[in-house]
Amino acid sequence: MRVDVLTLFPEMFTGVFGSSILGKAQEKGLVSLKAINFRDYSESKHGTVDDTPYGGGGGMVLKPEPIFRAVEALLNEQAAHSSQGEPGQCLSGPKRPPRVILLCPQGESFTQAKAEELAREDHLIMICGHYEGYDERIREHLVTDEISVGDYVLTGGELPAMVVTDSVVRLLPGVLGNETSAVTDSFSTGLLEYPHYTRPVEYQGWKVPDILLSGHHSNIEAWRRKEALRRTWERRPDLLDKLELTKQDKQWLAEIQTAEGQKPKA
Amino acid sequence: MRVDVLTLFPEMFTGVFGSSILGKAQEKGLVSLKAINFRDYSESKHGTVDDTPYGGGGGMVLKPEPIFRAVEALLNEQAAHSSQGEPGQCLSGPKRPPRVILLCPQGESFTQAKAEELAREDHLIMICGHYEGYDERIREHLVTDEISVGDYVLTGGELPAMVVTDSVVRLLPGVLGNETSAVTDSFSTGLLEYPHYTRPVEYQGWKVPDILLSGHHSNIEAWRRKEALRRTWERRPDLLDKLELTKQDKQWLAEIQTAEGQKPKA
Repeated sequence: MRVDVLTLFPEMFTGVFGSSILGKAQEKGLVSLKAINFRDYSESKHGTVDDTPYGGGGGMVLKPEPIFRAVEALLNEQAAHSSQGEPGQCLSGPKRPPRVILLCPQGESFTQAKAEELAREDHLIMICGHYEGYDERIREHLVTDEISVGDYVLTGGELPAMVVTDSVVRLLPGVLGNETSAVTDSFSTGLLEYPHYTRPVEYQGWKVPDILLSGHHSNIEAWRRKEALRRTWERRPDLLDKLELTKQDKQWLAEIQTAEGQKPKA
Repeated sequence: MRVDVLTLFPEMFTGVFGSSILGKAQEKGLVSLKAINFRDYSESKHGTVDDTPYGGGGGMVLKPEPIFRAVEALLNEQAAHSSQGEPGQCLSGPKRPPRVILLCPQGESFTQAKAEELAREDHLIMICGHYEGYDERIREHLVTDEISVGDYVLTGGELPAMVVTDSVVRLLPGVLGNETSAVTDSFSTGLLEYPHYTRPVEYQGWKVPDILLSGHHSNIEAWRRKEALRRTWERRPDLLDKLELTKQDKQWLAEIQTAEGQKPKA
């Protein structure tokens, strides 16, 4: 997979793209991550990328030309590579056209399902605004997806682009080692995770629950499932609506809900 | 305000904390941002910070000691500064105890209201896990808040810590200039933003709507309000439920909803 991020702040990406899973995925050749300054595609001498809004009002608006030109340059580059036949190209077949993703508060709410959808693509191009609005013609005629990572105000699309990249790249085959995929699996149950404990068995007087020291595997599994149900009910009851619960799950949930002093924390 | 992030990957923060609004806010002395490696607080020779889970299963679990010790060191440091009387201390009064925030999928969903709440604090300490789970005693006895930035799986708490930091710091008095606060204001209406346009008036045959070129201020305002309502209804009808709409808003919404071919995009 290839991910190209168009931004006015490429230096923001160095630490994140170079570290941890994203850094290793690039070293393994599983993904290519680039942050590209779209100011380089400005047609003006001064590198202008924004201008005042038609109709008046405060704030600046990102002009269409630099972003269209930057995306077109990436498309031409990919077309040239494809026609030359990159190594491995004949095995993987022709590349699909890139998804062009605008990070913005108006976008669809980002979810794990969307991450899985994007992880099946060959090439993602992400466009990050910063303070400014986007000229509507970018939204209408260039992008294929608009994504919002949450209902809060951020300074730009850079952090959202990193969030989307991390969540997508970690799903690519070969990126996660065994030590990490186990943790991921516990999410795929659709419940919040049960409590974890490790050494020491007692810390500042706080002890690990006896059951986890019992060595009784099926009791531990049952305790974990029940605690995952409890935590999900207490904190995110909305997640329970989306799940198919077993008869045993339902019985535990009823116990949790009727137990004395059991009230959602929220 | 002071923000200390405990992480095993402090190098991830350099680009983000050093650029744009966060970089400028530090230069202006409005905020101090630090990324601290809590491996430095490990009691073991080898800098061990995690261990296998009690009760078995895959994955590793972050041990309590290094994280407790790192937080305690920050608290002691603050107490020492307070008793010495930092410059400006007598004006601002005694500092409140820090909020200790765990970034994790089990946390409360992060919102703009939470960002505003945190922006009133003096000191935030954020704890980032990475692949691993957290020992439950950290959750129970050390942290004051657990935050999730969205329902998707990320490799660690680092990107969420950056998201929370950005959204909080930009709310601090003096951080945003006038050019950016205007954009923020348009969010505070609770609607998605209306379409923006800037020069050129025609690009690849796509024109700016005539109304924005009319110079008729009140018509432009009305068009923008209606387009903001349209976009919100099309993309995020849930946001409309939380708003107090005027009679005019309701009339426009009814027009939008009954207009031919008007269907939510989602």
